[in-house]
Amino acid sequence: MTAMTPRERFLAACRRQPVDRTPAWVMRQAGRYLPEYRAVRKHHDFLGMVRTPEAAAEVTLQPIRRFGMDAAVIFSDILVPHAAMGLDVRFEEGEGPKLAPCVRTPEDVEALRDFDAWRDTGFLGEAIRRVRAELGGERAIIGFCGAPWTSASYMIEGASSRNFEHAKRMLHGDPACFARLCERLVDNLVPYLRMQVEAGADVLQVFDSWGGAFDARTWSESLLPSTRRLVHEAKALGVPVILYVNGCSQLLETLVDTGADVLGLDWRVDPADAIRRTGGKVALQGNLDPCVLFAPPEVVERETRRVLDSFRDAPGHIFNLGSGILPGVPTASMEAVFRVVQGRQAMEARVS
Amino acid sequence: MTAMTPRERFLAACRRQPVDRTPAWVMRQAGRYLPEYRAVRKHHDFLGMVRTPEAAAEVTLQPIRRFGMDAAVIFSDILVPHAAMGLDVRFEEGEGPKLAPCVRTPEDVEALRDFDAWRDTGFLGEAIRRVRAELGGERAIIGFCGAPWTSASYMIEGASSRNFEHAKRMLHGDPACFARLCERLVDNLVPYLRMQVEAGADVLQVFDSWGGAFDARTWSESLLPSTRRLVHEAKALGVPVILYVNGCSQLLETLVDTGADVLGLDWRVDPADAIRRTGGKVALQGNLDPCVLFAPPEVVERETRRVLDSFRDAPGHIFNLGSGILPGVPTASMEAVFRVVQGRQAMEARVS
Repeated sequence: MTAMTPRERFLAACRRQPVDRTPAWVMRQAGRYLPEYRAVRKHHDFLGMVRTPEAAAEVTLQPIRRFGMDAAVIFSDILVPHAAMGLDVRFEEGEGPKLAPCVRTPEDVEALRDFDAWRDTGFLGEAIRRVRAELGGERAIIGFCGAPWTSASYMIEGASSRNFEHAKRMLHGDPACFARLCERLVDNLVPYLRMQVEAGADVLQVFDSWGGAFDARTWSESLLPSTRRLVHEAKALGVPVILYVNGCSQLLETLVDTGADVLGLDWRVDPADAIRRTGGKVALQGNLDPCVLFAPPEVVERETRRVLDSFRDAPGHIFNLGSGILPGVPTASMEAVFRVVQGRQAMEARVS
Repeated sequence: MTAMTPRERFLAACRRQPVDRTPAWVMRQAGRYLPEYRAVRKHHDFLGMVRTPEAAAEVTLQPIRRFGMDAAVIFSDILVPHAAMGLDVRFEEGEGPKLAPCVRTPEDVEALRDFDAWRDTGFLGEAIRRVRAELGGERAIIGFCGAPWTSASYMIEGASSRNFEHAKRMLHGDPACFARLCERLVDNLVPYLRMQVEAGADVLQVFDSWGGAFDARTWSESLLPSTRRLVHEAKALGVPVILYVNGCSQLLETLVDTGADVLGLDWRVDPADAIRRTGGKVALQGNLDPCVLFAPPEVVERETRRVLDSFRDAPGHIFNLGSGILPGVPTASMEAVFRVVQGRQAMEARVS
């Protein structure tokens, strides 16, 4: 097979078409493990970086320059729409995000405002345009948003949560209110994704970071309708959609029902099991345990190879970690990952 | 079938024998959601309660008096052996536990001391004796310890951990050191469990609270050997063994290989899937989502019934939550659970 550009390779894998090698990116690849990221971060707080197109574009491009991923994921945050819908969103140093006021009643849900994506979150569109201008057509750009559950849980809890007491109380105790909140979120997230595509995103990822908090029946009854609508309307924008649910072992069958082109798998999922249970209907993304990157490079190389091998029979595979890269990871580990993924050790491997 | 005592019912379910109704208990049932627990807690810090047999026995019995569970789980903590092995273990108010020094090298592992269960942790044996004296033979008493992974991860991280960076670094980067730590833990946990049985425990539960952090291959390669040894040596004490792994959806088949009599399931697991995948080789325990207890009582009753129904075809079932009860749960929710489990709503249900 003739060599493909990274963008061609990435889009082909999303669409379960043949590729010259497995495309790869890393969730949170524009992040704190990179010294050049920390250098930019010194001059901005987190939300300041998100809202400054020049800074967001710069840190988006940093990992591409160093490791040559097939796709750049735009530096942003899943809580950008929350602020645009009228909540006060803060990131305190060393803590998770804090949102106020909490959204816990039907009145709270109605009090959220509908936002205009370009007017209220145009900094993100502008950042994507800058990244596209620098990358040209060679590499893919991934835009993203939070899934209905993950987005709603931040609104209801007002913070990250270990158990989701308040959000699950609403889901189980007032399902109509919960469904309405999800509806309002999707109403706002679709134009927000449209803006990202208009600005140059080739692929959209929907992050359900907390979706693993449910059994399949509850996810299917309470979260599938809104998530499916979001995925379908995102696909209608003309780009492939990746649905990533952290902790998705028990959910694979219902996640296929969302209609996503690609399912992003966390590291706990056995690839062979995922291939079997998704029945060829989706491409798969994943799923190296991010903590393996704390082990020595030879272990990182071995485990990266193992992941690549174990997805060999998938109808389409995009290499990634099973969740976001962690702040303390040595850059040598990322070098090891991309040496293997990009085949730069093929000679040595054959010799050894 | 003639009525059984709660103890007979509980042990029969563990052994996959017929029961007159499903036995039930709740993880962390002796805990902060109970006002009478908080009243005792005022006079002791957490570890003080664990180490004072009178207080530990009292709070162990409180939920039995109120709700009539079939089994009392002794009030203690999985970090008791850690302190006995020479680590400084502290529980600061409002934070997780802190352990020092961290165990991260082969030298650190060898520096741990072997302890004598009755001499160094006899307060736990004494608490169990007191509970037995009060309960007589009518109800079961559950003793417990942490599984090798959960126990080891606290030692290596020195605290609870979201990602287990240090523990996984050791597991992947120095597997011999990790295996030796697990070996030393099991060497000490078995006599600790023996003491609990000598004091009156009828059943032992092994808590792998953090076992869900792995895919099945890694769990099987790195954790099955030590966990299986612990389970086998616990069973040799003559009591049934429950293995509870939080986040076990992807692990069921390998957990059966531990030889446990009962697998405790978290709420994310579909009961029908668990029954199928465990092939009749184990009884099952679980698995109501603990957050359902924040919903109104009618929702709690409905979801409790659903759990009971969904395990109807299990070879043995013990009702429980899918993880520990949370501090803010209303006692009315527990009343609703036990009304349904104990069949005290049978008349009303038939009428409605």
